[in-house]
Amino acid sequence: MTVVAEPGSPPFDAAKLDALLERAGVDAVLATSRHNVRYLLGGYEFFFFAHFTAIGVSGYLPCVVYAREQPESAFYVGNPMERLPLEREPLWIPSIDTSSWTTVGSARAAAAAVRRLGLGRGTIAVERSFLPDDAREALELELPGATFMEARPLLAELRAVKRPDELELLRRVADEIVLGMLAVIDSGLPGSTTSRLAEQIRVDQTVRGLASEYCLVAASPSRNRAPSSERWQSGGVSLDSGASLGGYIGDLARMGCIGDPTPRMEELLAEIAAVQDAGRAAVAPGRTGEEVYAAATACQAQCGDGALMTFVAHGMGLVSHEVPYLAESDTVPYSPDDRIRPFEPGMVLSIETDLYDDAVGYVKLEDTVVVTESGHEAYGDRGRGWNIAGTGGQSPTGG
Amino acid sequence: MTVVAEPGSPPFDAAKLDALLERAGVDAVLATSRHNVRYLLGGYEFFFFAHFTAIGVSGYLPCVVYAREQPESAFYVGNPMERLPLEREPLWIPSIDTSSWTTVGSARAAAAAVRRLGLGRGTIAVERSFLPDDAREALELELPGATFMEARPLLAELRAVKRPDELELLRRVADEIVLGMLAVIDSGLPGSTTSRLAEQIRVDQTVRGLASEYCLVAASPSRNRAPSSERWQSGGVSLDSGASLGGYIGDLARMGCIGDPTPRMEELLAEIAAVQDAGRAAVAPGRTGEEVYAAATACQAQCGDGALMTFVAHGMGLVSHEVPYLAESDTVPYSPDDRIRPFEPGMVLSIETDLYDDAVGYVKLEDTVVVTESGHEAYGDRGRGWNIAGTGGQSPTGG
Repeated sequence: MTVVAEPGSPPFDAAKLDALLERAGVDAVLATSRHNVRYLLGGYEFFFFAHFTAIGVSGYLPCVVYAREQPESAFYVGNPMERLPLEREPLWIPSIDTSSWTTVGSARAAAAAVRRLGLGRGTIAVERSFLPDDAREALELELPGATFMEARPLLAELRAVKRPDELELLRRVADEIVLGMLAVIDSGLPGSTTSRLAEQIRVDQTVRGLASEYCLVAASPSRNRAPSSERWQSGGVSLDSGASLGGYIGDLARMGCIGDPTPRMEELLAEIAAVQDAGRAAVAPGRTGEEVYAAATACQAQCGDGALMTFVAHGMGLVSHEVPYLAESDTVPYSPDDRIRPFEPGMVLSIETDLYDDAVGYVKLEDTVVVTESGHEAYGDRGRGWNIAGTGGQSPTGG
Repeated sequence: MTVVAEPGSPPFDAAKLDALLERAGVDAVLATSRHNVRYLLGGYEFFFFAHFTAIGVSGYLPCVVYAREQPESAFYVGNPMERLPLEREPLWIPSIDTSSWTTVGSARAAAAAVRRLGLGRGTIAVERSFLPDDAREALELELPGATFMEARPLLAELRAVKRPDELELLRRVADEIVLGMLAVIDSGLPGSTTSRLAEQIRVDQTVRGLASEYCLVAASPSRNRAPSSERWQSGGVSLDSGASLGGYIGDLARMGCIGDPTPRMEELLAEIAAVQDAGRAAVAPGRTGEEVYAAATACQAQCGDGALMTFVAHGMGLVSHEVPYLAESDTVPYSPDDRIRPFEPGMVLSIETDLYDDAVGYVKLEDTVVVTESGHEAYGDRGRGWNIAGTGGQSPTGG
């Protein structure tokens, strides 16, 4: 079934997308990942499949079809259950198909939209890591004259600079995550398992209206951050949690302590904070990821425990590592080009420094730092010292 | 990185899987969906990626490789962050690779495992709706002599009959979902938006330790079940919510009411309950989905409002519609063979009947009915009448 209403305006920078498609020689892009479908729909996600996609003999595969310089012809493929809610609260995209329960059915509906646009022999960009194999085959069968290529870099670049409404969500989610961590630390009882602490964070974030994604938690002196039966008996605890609001991710890390921290604990966290602050001081329009890394690693080199530390910075938004890709590690691939690309206002970085000390355990701060017109601003920027359990958040070093 | 520990015993019926693979001519199966990876790992899911899979330039793609009649050679491909937790709490599968952050990297690691098994020219079953296109291409490049086929029916059949530990999770999640609905209805304030009711359910389920999946909610007299700004002012409300525990899904629907229900409301819900009860009465070992549908539709034909009703029954477990596929609709595909296949103890059905009446609104019951040795048992089987707000759960018809 196809519903056609009055077309609206794209909620994203359509001229930028058109330019990206033009430069890549792409006629139309098919978005099928949760994050890019949501982005192109201006925040909409069908709530029913927010947590799982499998149903029946296949799965849910939403798809946005966008042809270059034809926003008025954009097309959305959803699920039959979306029909009624989308009649009541229409998308900016007037043309939708809600007939399919399967990945192959979604692909066929998307292919039909491409053909109606006269692009059956065009170059079509698809998200290969988020396009199921059977849907890809259906696209190829239905569009035998088309050429397919990877859409990921184009859509990642489209999302690189955040609008004020996106920044507002990122600010709120960061604030709420940190407030939740401080509340959970404050209520911390000696002997809680790390599983219990992670569950407290999950409940707290849910009550705050967030979608809780995960909580890494390490109780001194363990270096294991997976929630487990290990207990927070004394000393420090590291909380590193992700949650989202409207799909936008907050990912921050704070430290808690039972009783006063020892001088050694104070020293280690001060060193971590110094490296974090050195990194963020280099965040401003026109500056680069290379400068952020240079500043942080220079500070790290001056720290007595610098050799224990790992510093990482990466873009963040609807995906927890996104443009600019700055992380230099053997795991998350990064882009050398992004390292020397000038920051623009509206880019969002997650900056993180951690270390493991045999006696103190795992120590980490992770902050959300946004490039502003005049420099940078940190969201959720409280509680960066040792937050002491049972003090009502009034810890001397809890900042 | 590959970690090899002592092998354990498969937590599923390996002989059944071997027979299914043998009959289909399959040498090895590669599971890549969340539900089948979890099933083959005996319940394990890496918590970090339970809610999202996108990260960096690709996504998380766990994979279980199982070669026919070689459980001792089973292989798991995970993410670098899983290394430490899996060292502390090993899987039954001794051989794991946790080196990759990308879908292509996971596919390459899985292909290498297939080659080490000497099956590079074998027949490999993959989950085509849950295998990203770029991972499929990597498999084909790394295993140029292999033949690929669809794994879905084999793995769906493997999961058809639930073990006692699976049934216990299904019982608990059904019980908790219904208790939560009754609590939210009882606390219902006239004028609540359906969005607020859905959010109350989400928080309630989270506090109960469940993973809240969705809540469909319709306030009389609307037929819209998507949470919205519509208000529950008076009369009935329909709650239809899914949540999971250890991945196992509960999906039940109950009715609430502000003040006493009218005779017409009582009549409609009694008719719905009668159709539900007729359907479940036909659930027993050796009986079939065809009999369930025949019994329910015979009762429906005798109801004064039978023409308004829709009756559906479907298997349920780690997927919300799974074997036996009984639903006869134009949307979720079903299997004619499953309709005439004798039920076995341990199969789990979700049975649902709904109607829409212009004056009363949307009325629905959905129940979880399990095939037992002697017949059937319903999980979470309370509150099937009108549950009246503000009565502390002591409603006259709330059952």
